[in-house]
Amino acid sequence: MADRFPRRIPEPTVVRLPVYQRALLELSAIGVTTISSAELADAAGVNAAKVRKDLSHLGTYGTPGTGYDVDFLLGQVRRELGLDREWQVVIAGMGNLGHALARSQGFSTQNFRAVGLLDVDPAKIGELVAGLPIRHLSDLPEIAADTNPAIGVIASPASAAQDVCDRLVHAGIGAILNFAPAILTVPAPVLLRQVDFSVELQVLAFYVAHAELMTGSGASGDAPYSGL
Amino acid sequence: MADRFPRRIPEPTVVRLPVYQRALLELSAIGVTTISSAELADAAGVNAAKVRKDLSHLGTYGTPGTGYDVDFLLGQVRRELGLDREWQVVIAGMGNLGHALARSQGFSTQNFRAVGLLDVDPAKIGELVAGLPIRHLSDLPEIAADTNPAIGVIASPASAAQDVCDRLVHAGIGAILNFAPAILTVPAPVLLRQVDFSVELQVLAFYVAHAELMTGSGASGDAPYSGL
Repeated sequence: MADRFPRRIPEPTVVRLPVYQRALLELSAIGVTTISSAELADAAGVNAAKVRKDLSHLGTYGTPGTGYDVDFLLGQVRRELGLDREWQVVIAGMGNLGHALARSQGFSTQNFRAVGLLDVDPAKIGELVAGLPIRHLSDLPEIAADTNPAIGVIASPASAAQDVCDRLVHAGIGAILNFAPAILTVPAPVLLRQVDFSVELQVLAFYVAHAELMTGSGASGDAPYSGL
Repeated sequence: MADRFPRRIPEPTVVRLPVYQRALLELSAIGVTTISSAELADAAGVNAAKVRKDLSHLGTYGTPGTGYDVDFLLGQVRRELGLDREWQVVIAGMGNLGHALARSQGFSTQNFRAVGLLDVDPAKIGELVAGLPIRHLSDLPEIAADTNPAIGVIASPASAAQDVCDRLVHAGIGAILNFAPAILTVPAPVLLRQVDFSVELQVLAFYVAHAELMTGSGASGDAPYSGL
């Protein structure tokens, strides 16, 4: 993917920024004001050299002997991630997953605000989820015109996902996160990312299967946050 | 993480194996029998050189002029991921997310079999989800003794997550996937991976924010599967 999005920051660093952000938020919440790269590495589950290299991409270098200022670094990471502004999001597909997403803490605390919850099931239309009524998918153009959402989340069944995706694109939404188990296509320059629940289970299975082949290995229980 | 799990295959390759697996499953399903690294790269959203390097870690090199045998490669990737066997999984926390996970297609089609669905809400106990009754969290030791699950999935509220995690560890479960927005600790050699819904949104926000700063950029709509 590194070749597809021209920018200064490499993709592996980008996917670690949310991990640092999360660790810094927790540190800030418990009153920690400065942190060494080794401590941040420990909190984020990444090695210290990688932390220093990643943060240098933000133009940030800790003070020798003191480390990084937690709140300053947090602000910098959030600004880089674009989290210093609010992101309007529509969620299409209000089954269990759509409900879980609309109510998820990570969603609301990270400046992602649901402005539209969509489904096609008449029994669901009008139901309030996290204070917002579920509306019919056919209302998407109207919702998009009113709220100008930047991101569309697809939580529909796989069979409906491409149609939902086309509607999101047609409504002018430029970035799509797909949770449905379907491979979708979007026209350039729309951004599409795919989330698959089973991928993390598969990665875990890999390590369990390989750990079982090793005796007395150095496998540790302390693993970092995953890509999602 | 590369330093934590001794093995031959680097972590970035491990997390791409599920992506290849998924692309190969789809290709196999539509009757494709051989594929070039360029075609697999395209289907998986990864560049071709990376595909060849990743697959070389499995000891697999395509035939020049022909490419890879889809079903053979699929079998090899699945074996490497440990998906040539069934994995018993318990899910603790049967809210919307627990329901979504228990019913998710990726879960069942990848040889992950739920053998225990757990909650503490009396109103949920006994409810059938994907054919399995929800049982009380206090039944975990009994379920674990009967079914010997390898993986525990935490889909509980954050406030309960560490307690649930401790119970899973105490029941002898060696690998834990945590969806709760809480940083958990486990004793070695238990494996722990963390999933955060908002990370993919944050990565998407990064690219949208940065795309907006670029005019006429080469940003493309074709993005690969994410880490989860």
